[in-house]
Amino acid sequence: MATSSLAPPEVPMELHAGNRDRLLTALRAHLSATASPPRGIALLQGGEEQTRHCTDHLELFRQESYFAYLFGVREPGFYGAIDIASGQSILFAPRLPPDYAVWMGEIKPLPYFKDRYKVDLVFYVDEIVQVLQDRFSQHGKPVLFLLYGKSTDSGNYSKPASFEGIEKFDTDLGTLHPILTECRVIKSEMELGLIQYANDVSSEAHIEVMRQAKPGMKEYQLESIFLHHSYRYGACRHCSYTCICATGENSSILHYGHTAAPNDRTLNDGDMALMDMGAEYNFYGSDITCSYPINGKFNSNQATVYNAVLKAHNAVISHMQPGVKWVDMHKLAEQTILESLKNEKIIHGDIADMMTRRLGAVFMPHGLGHLLGIDTHDPGGYPEVEIWILPMFMQV
Amino acid sequence: MATSSLAPPEVPMELHAGNRDRLLTALRAHLSATASPPRGIALLQGGEEQTRHCTDHLELFRQESYFAYLFGVREPGFYGAIDIASGQSILFAPRLPPDYAVWMGEIKPLPYFKDRYKVDLVFYVDEIVQVLQDRFSQHGKPVLFLLYGKSTDSGNYSKPASFEGIEKFDTDLGTLHPILTECRVIKSEMELGLIQYANDVSSEAHIEVMRQAKPGMKEYQLESIFLHHSYRYGACRHCSYTCICATGENSSILHYGHTAAPNDRTLNDGDMALMDMGAEYNFYGSDITCSYPINGKFNSNQATVYNAVLKAHNAVISHMQPGVKWVDMHKLAEQTILESLKNEKIIHGDIADMMTRRLGAVFMPHGLGHLLGIDTHDPGGYPEVEIWILPMFMQV
Repeated sequence: MATSSLAPPEVPMELHAGNRDRLLTALRAHLSATASPPRGIALLQGGEEQTRHCTDHLELFRQESYFAYLFGVREPGFYGAIDIASGQSILFAPRLPPDYAVWMGEIKPLPYFKDRYKVDLVFYVDEIVQVLQDRFSQHGKPVLFLLYGKSTDSGNYSKPASFEGIEKFDTDLGTLHPILTECRVIKSEMELGLIQYANDVSSEAHIEVMRQAKPGMKEYQLESIFLHHSYRYGACRHCSYTCICATGENSSILHYGHTAAPNDRTLNDGDMALMDMGAEYNFYGSDITCSYPINGKFNSNQATVYNAVLKAHNAVISHMQPGVKWVDMHKLAEQTILESLKNEKIIHGDIADMMTRRLGAVFMPHGLGHLLGIDTHDPGGYPEVEIWILPMFMQV
Repeated sequence: MATSSLAPPEVPMELHAGNRDRLLTALRAHLSATASPPRGIALLQGGEEQTRHCTDHLELFRQESYFAYLFGVREPGFYGAIDIASGQSILFAPRLPPDYAVWMGEIKPLPYFKDRYKVDLVFYVDEIVQVLQDRFSQHGKPVLFLLYGKSTDSGNYSKPASFEGIEKFDTDLGTLHPILTECRVIKSEMELGLIQYANDVSSEAHIEVMRQAKPGMKEYQLESIFLHHSYRYGACRHCSYTCICATGENSSILHYGHTAAPNDRTLNDGDMALMDMGAEYNFYGSDITCSYPINGKFNSNQATVYNAVLKAHNAVISHMQPGVKWVDMHKLAEQTILESLKNEKIIHGDIADMMTRRLGAVFMPHGLGHLLGIDTHDPGGYPEVEIWILPMFMQV
């Protein structure tokens, strides 16, 4: 029987207020540095609930990440605004029809959201034009800073807020995205606390998977154990990404586990497992991979590879410190792995030559790591992302 | 420790071939009855994998339901065609880039899909224009029957297939949707087998939830137990709908459990539970609700309501037979409930009068039931759906 020492923490809504303060500071500094008027409104649109194709099947909603960062709102259909001059934060909630109460649950009054999300003001979405005009027009038409920019990971663009009547305002599409994205890079203590908790949950769940894994099981059963432990004991309803429960040859497929490769292999005696899974708590995620033999005993080849990776891991950890370049740590990992493989006579030749030719990328085709937070690759729109990963076979 | 007698069955791919045959028969009959040429191609576009907002977070893909019905393809990015004259079935698979093999898994050759999905021919999506022109132009430009129509449940329209070069064909948007939707209403034996299996899984999982539920737990822990039992023992990765684990007052909210009402209440001694959950297996789903006291003992009021519903349920089951009208069964359920409540002196007055005024809808605001299959409301586009539900307070 699984046991757990987890205690899901209260979600500190001050966390999101802290994130808003960080944005305010950065926006004001930017406006000052560019000699722009020190005002305007950062306006974001939260995510909408989606049906599956043409049906009435509602997908379980998970808030858009930038909106989650600033407002922590779990419900769909919201807008959020931050007035740069006063620092006031405003939520706009959807006005729900009366029969929502029968089908979906209690219709919460506006003060509920004000209290829950620690914002200064709450109105309905259909009041957005009037509220922004009435309250923020003392210097003429307020400028709305909308979120529009490219996620460097996906190549997709964030969708700027839109609503009926937006043409009554001046809008700015270029300012907010890079500044807000930069804010998300460095995490606050409260953010780190949630990330740590999500990682604690995931660690415990990984151990439970390891405990139960044995030959004859299916990979998806390991996924199920992870999901269950994370949700039942850790209160994590979502994962940061689709669980990768790879055994045998599947372990070499980096993003195994999706619908077209759905964790459906039977575990064999002698298999290595590569388990790459992470739970998410109040939007903040985790990303943990561990690798072990399904039958509990490494054979000699498995031990060689495992130890080569472990040595690279330890080398990087011991060299990481402020001022060290990420790309140098990537090279250190590759070099350490190549040296281990050479020592074991798996590869032959000159290590420096192998490094120049990026032979290491054959054994480690992915980056050394990535930032982690509200998204698994967090934030995806970070414009300096190229320093975090080293594309396969790029000459360095 | 949970145990299970479940054995996930092999998925019979002939099932989808059978569904295609049903469509062919119906389409040919329609063309004959309307004195139209007995040819053309039913062409559908499968679903595409979606990222979450602008990020590179891939949502776990679940095939679009009409496409799943006809082709059973689990992978995203496919097209499927059925030639009405010859009955030939053709799949068009996406041509994947070489680095797919590193990140996502083995690139399957076309014969893999031909064998797996029991179709006559497989090509790449980028060959679609050429294949349709080369093979089906002996009577001039072939007519493509595309899927376009309204889901009467959601109000959404299905998205007809589109691809570069479609303008080289004649297209028909009106014929396929109502005919294919009608095909989906009556299930084949193989479809019933999968629906039965999904229901068997769900029944077992519900019992496991009931076994473990006790005061002090959280509603979401019950959800987690259900999900885990269905996936670990039943191989059901998806559910038909978001789990509704309602206790106490939440039990009166029909679609409780979504993100804005997320199964987060603590179970109290004395609570009733309303558990509405269903697993899905190879696209075919289940939908089971059961209600019981969390502490294992009905109090008097709980027993009264439970027995009123049970009596209505049994009355409907014993009166159901071919030729009986659904709406009459709905009325029978309402009347039986009203009679029970009157016997218990909870309501007073003339039952016939209450029926005319639809007082029963206060206690049963939803329909008596719905069709079930690849969608939970299956098929949502069924044009005669109004006979299946009785809107609240509609005079009958």
